[in-house]
Amino acid sequence: MNIRIFVTGGTFDKEYNEITGQLYFKDSHLQEMLELGRCRVAVDIRTLMMVDSLEISDLDRELIAEHCNKAEENKIIITHGTDTITETASLLAQKVSDKTIVVTGAMIPYKFGSSDGLFNLGSALAFVQTLPSGVYVAMNGQCFSSGTVRKNKLTGEFEELRD
Amino acid sequence: MNIRIFVTGGTFDKEYNEITGQLYFKDSHLQEMLELGRCRVAVDIRTLMMVDSLEISDLDRELIAEHCNKAEENKIIITHGTDTITETASLLAQKVSDKTIVVTGAMIPYKFGSSDGLFNLGSALAFVQTLPSGVYVAMNGQCFSSGTVRKNKLTGEFEELRD
Amino acid sequence: MNIRIFVTGGTFDKEYNEITGQLYFKDSHLQEMLELGRCRVAVDIRTLMMVDSLEISDLDRELIAEHCNKAEENKIIITHGTDTITETASLLAQKVSDKTIVVTGAMIPYKFGSSDGLFNLGSALAFVQTLPSGVYVAMNGQCFSSGTVRKNKLTGEFEELRD
Amino acid sequence: MNIRIFVTGGTFDKEYNEITGQLYFKDSHLQEMLELGRCRVAVDIRTLMMVDSLEISDLDRELIAEHCNKAEENKIIITHGTDTITETASLLAQKVSDKTIVVTGAMIPYKFGSSDGLFNLGSALAFVQTLPSGVYVAMNGQCFSSGTVRKNKLTGEFEELRD
Repeated sequence: MNIRIFVTGGTFDKEYNEITGQLYFKDSHLQEMLELGRCRVAVDIRTLMMVDSLEISDLDRELIAEHCNKAEENKIIITHGTDTITETASLLAQKVSDKTIVVTGAMIPYKFGSSDGLFNLGSALAFVQTLPSGVYVAMNGQCFSSGTVRKNKLTGEFEELRD
Repeated sequence: MNIRIFVTGGTFDKEYNEITGQLYFKDSHLQEMLELGRCRVAVDIRTLMMVDSLEISDLDRELIAEHCNKAEENKIIITHGTDTITETASLLAQKVSDKTIVVTGAMIPYKFGSSDGLFNLGSALAFVQTLPSGVYVAMNGQCFSSGTVRKNKLTGEFEELRD
Repeated sequence: MNIRIFVTGGTFDKEYNEITGQLYFKDSHLQEMLELGRCRVAVDIRTLMMVDSLEISDLDRELIAEHCNKAEENKIIITHGTDTITETASLLAQKVSDKTIVVTGAMIPYKFGSSDGLFNLGSALAFVQTLPSGVYVAMNGQCFSSGTVRKNKLTGEFEELRD
Repeated sequence: MNIRIFVTGGTFDKEYNEITGQLYFKDSHLQEMLELGRCRVAVDIRTLMMVDSLEISDLDRELIAEHCNKAEENKIIITHGTDTITETASLLAQKVSDKTIVVTGAMIPYKFGSSDGLFNLGSALAFVQTLPSGVYVAMNGQCFSSGTVRKNKLTGEFEELRD
């Protein structure tokens, strides 16, 4: 069974616009990244949106959930900006069942030499193949069940929520 | 519980010697790669040898198995050249039990821009955290149980053995 | 005789802030770039400011000119944002004489894999060693005398002014 | 007037063969490097050979000289392995006149992240535009007249010959 990747944008895909000097979104780099990783797992990529995750609305999240539900695949990776990645994971946990969904992102754009993106994508592909049904956030080698994690806005790290 | 990484060399760590024009081994790049991946999982790295996997002898394999058995950690990643990666995995499967061991490598040295190493390391770290006890070979998004895989020397791909 | 490099910031030195997701200036990458180029020419680097060239005021330009005049070296490279690089070159041409000054920049930050920075720095170092006294703008293989060039804001290219 | 680039191979263009684990030559990276540098100078590239410079024979050198003489352009860059770069420069100095020829190379292949190639190419393009007729070796920011330079095989550096 193939793995489905849904692209929503986020730091992963930010590029530098050499005319304006601003960061922006053009095309997704996911295909290029899978080729760099010489990925031998069958993967279908579909871009749902190309935005900063601060701009993802609740309606957008509903749309992502709908795509997950409609997908033939049971194993789904979603690339997403890190700022609201946990919100999207929580909504997916409510709306989608019987699928393994791994939401991942990057701290540094893939096009920067110092990006963690390729590492995170490799992890996400492994987690999605091995974990039971559920929604997970995978970042920087770690994997959290949806609802048990938050992003520390000061350090940029993802931390386990403790009661 | 920490994850242990044993380094044995292989394509992962090959560098270009600018005096001789040859590829050679100097230091391992694993620490640098984990930093690039902003890895938040506790990992201890130990270099056992720095060689091309064609030069790994049966005695070397016994040594690697001994290190796996003696390690406090139950989750172990081994970086290894791809040419004899399946031989080492097979011996480890005989000699080590009750541990999850993921042997991984790279098709292209990390120091080349086009390396798959960071992707493979990300995958290996995810596989080792999620798979049950056993010995596995993880390459390019795929993960095989020891004894079920061979490297196709013509294409460079890892393939499942079929009876 | 050594070559002096004055750093003023610009695209060359922009970095990605992984906490805020914004581009910003931290340290100059000039030393690192010279090491990457294995530069064997004696060079002294001094950072005068670290700003986007749209924020460089006339007073800042006077300051840069003063540093050029006071420098012991007769061969000076200035790294500068491209948006106002020609303004700075023009002021330097008025204020500094008997020195070869090459002002250079980059269309893409050095820290992006796709940067033209290393290429431009290599050119600037060659131009400054070979050209007679005067102020020049060197970008993307070309070199223009101050006052004969403008940046085309639509294409990002530097063009010769024609009467 | 355009600049002509003749490619002869050398470290510049070495690639890693992921099947054999050896370095080899496939295609030249010069076009890709000029694009990375966003080179705005008109350049024509022609590959004469793709070899390690230790394999360049006297006959090959005669061939290179003939191409330089026949070229319409007066400004010529030759990319060359560093081991025998000074021998080729010396022969060119005997056989070609009234042209500016800059022979350049790299200590580390372009495809390695740590390559000096882009820096050297930027320099070579600047030197060839500014220097008078003659044959030069340009490496790592320096430029030597043919016959005044040797490669120090121990350090990899190019040094001025002193009588």
